[in-house]
Amino acid sequence: MQMVELIRKKRDRQSLNDEEIRFFVEGVRTKRIPDYQTTALLMAIWLNGMEDGETLSLTEQMLHSGDLLEWADLPGSKVDKHSTGGVGDTTSLILAPIVASTGLWMPMIAGRGLGHTGGTLDKLESIPGFCVNLDRHRFRSILTEAHLVIGGQTETIAPVDKKLYALRDVTATVESIPLIASSILSKKLAEGIDALVLDIKVGSGAFMKTPKQAGLLAHTLVRIGAGAGKQVTALVTNMDQPLGTHVGNSLEVIEAVHVLSGRSFGDLADLSFELAAHLLVMGGKCDSMRQALSWVRGIVQRGEALAKFRQLVALQGGDAGCVDDVSRLPLADQTHDFTATKRGIIQRLDAERVGSAAMALGAGRRTAEDRIDPGVGLILHGKIGDRVEKGRPLATIFYHDAGKCKEACGFLEQAYLIGEAPPKKMRLVRRVLSSKKRSEVIH
Amino acid sequence: MQMVELIRKKRDRQSLNDEEIRFFVEGVRTKRIPDYQTTALLMAIWLNGMEDGETLSLTEQMLHSGDLLEWADLPGSKVDKHSTGGVGDTTSLILAPIVASTGLWMPMIAGRGLGHTGGTLDKLESIPGFCVNLDRHRFRSILTEAHLVIGGQTETIAPVDKKLYALRDVTATVESIPLIASSILSKKLAEGIDALVLDIKVGSGAFMKTPKQAGLLAHTLVRIGAGAGKQVTALVTNMDQPLGTHVGNSLEVIEAVHVLSGRSFGDLADLSFELAAHLLVMGGKCDSMRQALSWVRGIVQRGEALAKFRQLVALQGGDAGCVDDVSRLPLADQTHDFTATKRGIIQRLDAERVGSAAMALGAGRRTAEDRIDPGVGLILHGKIGDRVEKGRPLATIFYHDAGKCKEACGFLEQAYLIGEAPPKKMRLVRRVLSSKKRSEVIH
Repeated sequence: MQMVELIRKKRDRQSLNDEEIRFFVEGVRTKRIPDYQTTALLMAIWLNGMEDGETLSLTEQMLHSGDLLEWADLPGSKVDKHSTGGVGDTTSLILAPIVASTGLWMPMIAGRGLGHTGGTLDKLESIPGFCVNLDRHRFRSILTEAHLVIGGQTETIAPVDKKLYALRDVTATVESIPLIASSILSKKLAEGIDALVLDIKVGSGAFMKTPKQAGLLAHTLVRIGAGAGKQVTALVTNMDQPLGTHVGNSLEVIEAVHVLSGRSFGDLADLSFELAAHLLVMGGKCDSMRQALSWVRGIVQRGEALAKFRQLVALQGGDAGCVDDVSRLPLADQTHDFTATKRGIIQRLDAERVGSAAMALGAGRRTAEDRIDPGVGLILHGKIGDRVEKGRPLATIFYHDAGKCKEACGFLEQAYLIGEAPPKKMRLVRRVLSSKKRSEVIH
Repeated sequence: MQMVELIRKKRDRQSLNDEEIRFFVEGVRTKRIPDYQTTALLMAIWLNGMEDGETLSLTEQMLHSGDLLEWADLPGSKVDKHSTGGVGDTTSLILAPIVASTGLWMPMIAGRGLGHTGGTLDKLESIPGFCVNLDRHRFRSILTEAHLVIGGQTETIAPVDKKLYALRDVTATVESIPLIASSILSKKLAEGIDALVLDIKVGSGAFMKTPKQAGLLAHTLVRIGAGAGKQVTALVTNMDQPLGTHVGNSLEVIEAVHVLSGRSFGDLADLSFELAAHLLVMGGKCDSMRQALSWVRGIVQRGEALAKFRQLVALQGGDAGCVDDVSRLPLADQTHDFTATKRGIIQRLDAERVGSAAMALGAGRRTAEDRIDPGVGLILHGKIGDRVEKGRPLATIFYHDAGKCKEACGFLEQAYLIGEAPPKKMRLVRRVLSSKKRSEVIH
């Protein structure tokens, strides 16, 4: 088999068969295929697409290019959640302890923030001592004890995906549905899970800018996940404005603790509970979403979710005292109120610009090498549809560097639009798509 | 400027401007742009095409990426010919001495054969002593003396084209009209010529398999050449069967000598004379093709063309005696007659398969590293439309290795189709396209 022939086929809109995709993935893994051939194929895939069968094959080959976690000795369903990334979106920190409290297993491999979106690992690392670099043995022992563990991706999980992503990033071939779907699923399925809930963000702060794109990705993920024999539910959710009110690493842990304590309501709590409920249904714990949502709220109200989070923090080496006293988290002591220049109703609160403000403060990374500052960020005092008064604070900025604070204010000025008319109500969850059994979807 | 942004633009079907194309070509030349980004762009160009302005810009940037030959001290027009490559196609060896005899200058940089098509340099090197590796000084002095010189491409002529071609070859991005056009023209324009005649082959033995593809390439070459301020005429000519009757390196020199001596007629002579006549018209030597063709025939009949060829061979270090006594050329002494298995009329004589037969004998290269055997090849005793008798030779094979001769016979068996009906007459020259002045074509 010749790589140039595979490129030619995809260039000519033909499908690659399983054997050809295996040849490609194996060639990337063993470095037998040079990068310049890989990127030519990636561009041909970007422009000509892939059929479901090809995407499934690519997913499975990438999955098997590395280690596969295996939990046969742990009875019951293993589940996880994946989000395409948003701003003020700390659902993982909330739903994970909730789901683990029900007896389902959550072997979660999470990511870091890049650009204007935050990352679960960065947020957890703002808790003093919290360790996300776990070897296989420790990953397993924490999961076994707590039904939950949150670690970082290792070199041995889907290594071909890592290699392909690095090449896609520099060749404008990132935003391809089959490539995104196979990348997400190969990493998640390597966790050895049975069910997966996906949060596909759409809007200004999301990777997918239009509902059509997001819907296509959601459909593909559900079909391919089902093709791989997994239960998958995908929610398409709004990311035109930040999900929560806190943006920044310590600040998002604080908001998560508020929600887990039953002291905070709103979009973040609603979406976290809904995602958790989908996992309870897929994991066989509940028959209906109604029952699942009720159980989730009970877990929070009875303090079980917060206790589970406390246990997780302790097991991963973090200062569990933070969970009861969030003032122990690192937080910048300089604050600045960003105020409204006129009265009215918030019409727009652009998530990407709020994310850029947080990144300007040092809460995010421009490149993978940047170090983040856990103590900086901002709290939003209102969201779209809320009334504001001239001169009153719209947001409070936590900063270490006055220059960066000024830069963040610049982004916030562009983020807000204040007007008179009540804005159109946006639904938080736009669509929910669920997988059928494998045989009904593929073949 | 970022290469990834250029890739993104072309991926999204946007045009690249002059500055962006300069950035790309310069980045390839200086190796600042890694190959994996170059090939992603090449695939995007293959799939999304380029506008004339982009192709012109790419041509000019590649041209200026290397040395440009310059002949301001030689008064009069400098002209050349380029063919996309065929079988039994030795027009260069015939038209070059004819055109140089008229006082036009021909600073010809020619190529080598690859696959089933032959190369001018390989044919010339079958003449003992003939040297095609000329330094700039010798190239100039031979041209000045003979009005003609034929050398090989050097590392310093359009080096970016060389690099891009190597990458296109392994990423299935060769057959792209803008990439082919810019590759051909950047090399030819580096010769410092004023006018160019192009022979775009179409048919089984050609790179372009359909008249539509060939017409598109011809149109593009003419427009881009005109855009670069040159006179360009492109002929789309038939390559369903070999052009001449001799295929192989020494054998094609022999056939060229026959034509130059006025002793051989047919397609090869006709096309060589027509191409030469177009150069005479573009070079300002004649007002009409009719006048030019008449002059060309006179040059041949008076022996001026053969004398010019003899002069060229001598100046480039070759045994000029070969021109008058072709038996001095190396020729395999073992021959085999490939005979007709039935009587009838030749319906098909597939050029690609005849070329493959010659390659099997050792006359061509499978890879750029292969060595060729100048003495092997075959002579065709009839072409499409000719009557054949059962048991009579269709072709005579010149070989050094009986196994290779057998392999060649296998290809010839597939090349011929003999039937009863008189086959449809194919026109040798299907189309002729000429450039208008620059201002009328681009902008």
